[in-house]
Amino acid sequence: MNLLNKTIQQIAPQDLDSRAAARARLEQLTMPHWALGRLMDMAEQLAGMTRSVRPAVSRKAVVIMAGDHGVAASGVSQYPQEVTVQMVHNFANKGAGCNALAALAGAQVVVVDAGVAGDLASLVQQGKIISKRIAPGTGNIHTGPAMTREQAVASIEAGIEVANSLSESIDLFATGEMGIANTTPSSAIVAVLTGLPVEEITGRGTGLNDAALEHKIAVVKEALRVNQPDPADFLDVLAKVGGFEIGAIAGLILGAAALKKPVIIDGFITTAGALIAQGLAPDSAQYMIASHQSVEPGHSAALKQLGKEPLLSLNLRLGEGTGAVLAMNLVESSVRILTEVATFEEAMVSGANPDK
Amino acid sequence: MNLLNKTIQQIAPQDLDSRAAARARLEQLTMPHWALGRLMDMAEQLAGMTRSVRPAVSRKAVVIMAGDHGVAASGVSQYPQEVTVQMVHNFANKGAGCNALAALAGAQVVVVDAGVAGDLASLVQQGKIISKRIAPGTGNIHTGPAMTREQAVASIEAGIEVANSLSESIDLFATGEMGIANTTPSSAIVAVLTGLPVEEITGRGTGLNDAALEHKIAVVKEALRVNQPDPADFLDVLAKVGGFEIGAIAGLILGAAALKKPVIIDGFITTAGALIAQGLAPDSAQYMIASHQSVEPGHSAALKQLGKEPLLSLNLRLGEGTGAVLAMNLVESSVRILTEVATFEEAMVSGANPDK
Repeated sequence: MNLLNKTIQQIAPQDLDSRAAARARLEQLTMPHWALGRLMDMAEQLAGMTRSVRPAVSRKAVVIMAGDHGVAASGVSQYPQEVTVQMVHNFANKGAGCNALAALAGAQVVVVDAGVAGDLASLVQQGKIISKRIAPGTGNIHTGPAMTREQAVASIEAGIEVANSLSESIDLFATGEMGIANTTPSSAIVAVLTGLPVEEITGRGTGLNDAALEHKIAVVKEALRVNQPDPADFLDVLAKVGGFEIGAIAGLILGAAALKKPVIIDGFITTAGALIAQGLAPDSAQYMIASHQSVEPGHSAALKQLGKEPLLSLNLRLGEGTGAVLAMNLVESSVRILTEVATFEEAMVSGANPDK
Repeated sequence: MNLLNKTIQQIAPQDLDSRAAARARLEQLTMPHWALGRLMDMAEQLAGMTRSVRPAVSRKAVVIMAGDHGVAASGVSQYPQEVTVQMVHNFANKGAGCNALAALAGAQVVVVDAGVAGDLASLVQQGKIISKRIAPGTGNIHTGPAMTREQAVASIEAGIEVANSLSESIDLFATGEMGIANTTPSSAIVAVLTGLPVEEITGRGTGLNDAALEHKIAVVKEALRVNQPDPADFLDVLAKVGGFEIGAIAGLILGAAALKKPVIIDGFITTAGALIAQGLAPDSAQYMIASHQSVEPGHSAALKQLGKEPLLSLNLRLGEGTGAVLAMNLVESSVRILTEVATFEEAMVSGANPDK
C-alpha cells in the first residue's frame, strides 16, 4: 500500500505554462489557425504532461498485462481458458497482432504475467515475459469476489513497478491486455462505475452469439448482486469484480502519470483499468490518451466517464494494446507538428486577413 | 488526349482471386474473427489492388500539386494569392506540415507546379520541385471558365506523367495540394457532381467568417450560372469550374490506378479531383483509400459519391496531403497484419467454440 499511496501523491496536474508555450508556437505555424485540429490539441496536452515544448515520445512500449478469470468457468467466452497461456507464448514468439503493429511503430512489447492460470516459467526464465503473478487466476465473480483487497492493491502495485522499471528507457506507454473472459469483469466494473444498466454495457467480446450474450449479461448481473461492490471505493470494485491484469493496467497508468509520461489507453478492458486509476487519482486522467473507439458497447460510456474522445474508430475489438499501438503514430505526429513546422515569420509566409 | 485515353484503358478492377487469398489468411489469424475490423478490410483491398497477398506499400510518396486560381481576385480567401508561391518554397525548405508528417512516415514529398501564378524557376532548377505548369493560374470562374478543354486534358495528363515517372520507385501514393482559393472551385465541382445545393457544399476554407462565407457561396453560385458545366461531362466540369492542380490530382489518381497501386485521398480538394478521376474511369475508385473526414462540409457528400468511408476524423482542414500522409501508417499496419501475424495453426492456439 506504501507504493500505491506514494505514487498517487506524486501525480500532479498538467503544467499550464508548458501548455501555453506550446499553444503560442502552434498558433504561429505556417497553416490556417489550428488547421491540424486534434493533433494540435494533443501536442498542447503532451507539452502539459511532459513539461516541455519538445515532448519526448520516441521511445515507446506497449505493456500487455495478462491474467485469467475464474468466471471463464461460467461459460462467458467462446474460447477456452488455455488460450491465455497460448497467446502469451504467441506474444513471446512475436506472432500476434500486437507484435506486428508494434514492430511497425518501433515500440517494445513488454508482456507481464499478472495472474495467468498456467505455467509460464520457461518464458520468465528466458526473459521473454515479466512475472508479477498475484495468483493463478481470479475467483469466479459469478459466485464470489475476484480477489482480496490486498491482492487488488498488489495487482496495482505490480503495474506501478513495471512503469517504474521502464522509466529510464521509455517515453510513451501504451496499455494492452490478454485474458480469456476479461470483458466480463470489465463490464461489471464499467456498470458499477457509470451506474448504467448491465445490458447497455455488456457486449459480445470475442464474438458471442445472441444466446451466449444473454447468458453473459445474466452472469454480470449476478456478479454485481452477489458481490455488492461499493462504487465509491475503487479498490473494492477491483477486488470484488475485477481482474489481476485490470489492476496491473490501473497501476501502469498511475505509474506513468507519476512519472509525468503519456499513457495510451486501448479498448474496453484497459479503459476499465483506466477508470480504476482515475478513481484512485483523478489527475491521472490528464496523462491518458484514448486511442480508439472499440466495438464493445460499454466502451463509449467508459470513455465518457474518463472525459476522453478516442482518436481512431476502426471497428477494432482485439485488445492486446493493438489500438493503442496504432495511435502511437498520431502521438508522434502531433509532436512533429509542434517541433518541426516553421512559423509564418520563419518561413516568410504572409498571414491571414483579419477582416475575413 | 492519347495519354489520358491510354491510361483510362489500362485501369482494371481489383483482382478477386488475390482478395480471396488474402481473406482466407486473415480469417485464420490468431485473433477473434476479423477483430482488427477496418484494417483487415483494407488489407483485403490492398491485395486486390496489387494482385498480391504481400502488397507492397513501403515506398511512399505524397505528391503535392500546386496551382493558382483566378477566383482569388473575387475575395474568396483570407490569404493573398502570393501565399501559394510562398508555401511552395516552404515545402521545398521542408518547413510545412506535410514535410513534418512525411518525415515521420518515411514518405517522399514530391511538389509539382501545375499552374502557379508566380516565379518558381529557381526551385525547378534546383530540382526541388517538378514543373508541369499549364498556365500561371486559371481564369476567374466567377466570370468565365477556369481553362480550356485542352488545358483540362493537359492538367490531367501532367498528373499521369508524374505517376508514371514514380512507377519504379513508389508503391503507395498520397495526394496533396496547395492553391490559395482552391476550396472555391472544389465546392463548385462537388456541387455539380453531387447535385447538392451550393450552400450545403461550401465551407469556410482556411477560416472565413460568416460574411465572407456568404460571399463565397454567392461566388460559387455565380460560377455555376455563368459557366453551366455539364455534370455528365467530367472534362467540361474541370475546364469550366476546376483548377490545374485539381486536374493534376485526378491524373495522379488515374495514373496510380493504371499502375495497380493504391492512392490515398486527402481532404476536400483532392476528393474533388478524385470525383473527376472516378467520372473518367469508374474503376479508378477501386484504388483509392479515403484518409480522413475534413472539416469542410462538402467533404462528406464527396466521399459518399466516391463510395468511401474515411479512416480518420481529426478535425483537419490543412490540405497539403497531411491527412493522406497520416493514413499511410494505417495502410502499412493493415499489410503488417496480413503478412506478419501467425495463424491459429502456426501458433498452436485453440480456436473458438462454434456453438457460442
